[in-house]
Amino acid sequence: MTVTIKDVAKEAGVSAATVSRVLNNSGYVYEDTRKAVMEAINHLQYKPNEVARSLYKRTSKLIGLVLPDITNPFFPALARGVEDKLQQLGYRVIFGNTDGDATKEMDYIDTFLQHNVVGLIASVDRLHHEVLTNLRVPVVTVDRTTEELPAVYADHKSGGRLAAEKLVRSACEKIVVLRGPQDAKPLYDRFQSATQYLSENNVSFHYLDCQLSFEDGRQKAKELFDQFPDTDGIIACNDLVAAAVLHEAVTRGISVPTDLQVIGYDNITISEIVHPSLTTIHQPTYEMGMKAAEMIIKLISKEKLNTIHEQLPVFIKERNSTVNGGI
Amino acid sequence: MTVTIKDVAKEAGVSAATVSRVLNNSGYVYEDTRKAVMEAINHLQYKPNEVARSLYKRTSKLIGLVLPDITNPFFPALARGVEDKLQQLGYRVIFGNTDGDATKEMDYIDTFLQHNVVGLIASVDRLHHEVLTNLRVPVVTVDRTTEELPAVYADHKSGGRLAAEKLVRSACEKIVVLRGPQDAKPLYDRFQSATQYLSENNVSFHYLDCQLSFEDGRQKAKELFDQFPDTDGIIACNDLVAAAVLHEAVTRGISVPTDLQVIGYDNITISEIVHPSLTTIHQPTYEMGMKAAEMIIKLISKEKLNTIHEQLPVFIKERNSTVNGGI
Repeated sequence: MTVTIKDVAKEAGVSAATVSRVLNNSGYVYEDTRKAVMEAINHLQYKPNEVARSLYKRTSKLIGLVLPDITNPFFPALARGVEDKLQQLGYRVIFGNTDGDATKEMDYIDTFLQHNVVGLIASVDRLHHEVLTNLRVPVVTVDRTTEELPAVYADHKSGGRLAAEKLVRSACEKIVVLRGPQDAKPLYDRFQSATQYLSENNVSFHYLDCQLSFEDGRQKAKELFDQFPDTDGIIACNDLVAAAVLHEAVTRGISVPTDLQVIGYDNITISEIVHPSLTTIHQPTYEMGMKAAEMIIKLISKEKLNTIHEQLPVFIKERNSTVNGGI
Repeated sequence: MTVTIKDVAKEAGVSAATVSRVLNNSGYVYEDTRKAVMEAINHLQYKPNEVARSLYKRTSKLIGLVLPDITNPFFPALARGVEDKLQQLGYRVIFGNTDGDATKEMDYIDTFLQHNVVGLIASVDRLHHEVLTNLRVPVVTVDRTTEELPAVYADHKSGGRLAAEKLVRSACEKIVVLRGPQDAKPLYDRFQSATQYLSENNVSFHYLDCQLSFEDGRQKAKELFDQFPDTDGIIACNDLVAAAVLHEAVTRGISVPTDLQVIGYDNITISEIVHPSLTTIHQPTYEMGMKAAEMIIKLISKEKLNTIHEQLPVFIKERNSTVNGGI
């Protein structure tokens, strides 16, 4: 009787998909699991069906795109950049929202590989970068990057410093930083460089942890105004959170920018729409998507890259939520 | 010598992809083109490679999603609804942004079929619905729907009426309607029902055509205030345009809602963030995506549907840009 992949899976106490992952060296598998599968293969003398495997490995024009959440207003422009560039180059995008959950990330990567993607573009928290290593296709990380893998990201060290510098130059003396999740490298970098600048310039500051949503921004803005009522400058971890701060300030009758200055991060459409319009750090989000797409196609075509770490510049966009603002 | 698909393409003066489309009865092909291809096939006595065709036709777990533009804040929630439900059901999404361009729509649909999608979910202007007919996989239209195909959409006839009714009950007498592109059925329906309500209630109104972007909203808001300075109520075609109207009103010192009431459409996040917060018509956007995903999987599995036209309810969300507002 022929031994099948299902027999191996049963013997090893895992799913057939896991056996497939081990055989194809694709996707993340715990070392213990890998060992159990290899033992089952040896024990049962399983011979993978080469026809099936070659079919499985045939090439496609599909690129997998793994994002935390397309409804976070930062990501649509990034996804659009990826998709526009890939469309020009004759490729198509298969995409998934992971909510930063490692299990979902693994699941998407596995099934994308089963659908013959020839490359992956991923935005994954750095604690989970293991899921992206040892895949059988090239990977480019974007925004949430890691040093071990090809990466496209904005210069958040400059971004954080620019935000802090703006408030210090605009005479803020009691600053609160709303700090985003530190597992995400962009948020870590901008927080570190902002607070480093404040420390170097002997400006006192507090910080509060904050999720990247408008809802959490609203909650944290309330706590902030209750806890530190004499705050005169707020560095928010993104524009949604900054918009929530503005909203809460207006509700409390705090005048922006006279009594309180606020600076966001990203320069999403919302930052222009709110009133007063928001001073923010502009990220080249769409361009980052384009660059990541270019890089993955070069890796697939085995073209030489100038660098595997592509850092794009940011700049400050001054509007009316800080003094001496533009527009 | 064996006749290949390329020889047929050359003889017919078309691309190999077009020949493939004719052979597989997939994607849209002009009748003249189809005729030319069939003549070339007969003339050259071409025999399609059955192995290649069966490979080409093997099933996948891929669903194609064709949207106008993921950076329009209405679509991320819809895409997320589609993707979440398909993820639960073990399917994956391959997606493209068409900008409402018929050539791009055809191109995406063709290449999605080449990648063995087993179904399509599409949001396409009604003038282009021809590209969705006679495909070899099931299709569900969403938001921008047509009566000839399975469809998931919100009840825009009620939505338009609710918006008009709110302004009339709040004593607006000089109303301007910012009308969205009428090729898109949702925008047509809401405009028709809003203006019908105004006419039935003998309320005078003007209308201006407007694209769905913040930028065009801003431009049209300026024209509107210049042309009709005594306007006391504005029905905007979506929330982005309504936000642009609020922005322009604040800039001109027009007090909302005292002197001017504004109502949007969609209930995207922005409508809560702007100040004053925006009264709007809530669309069940995420749910529409979920429903469309459910429907396409049922069609693929040849399950019986209760209806091929799934209409979801809308409701008015009262906030502070109209009088007697909620929150």
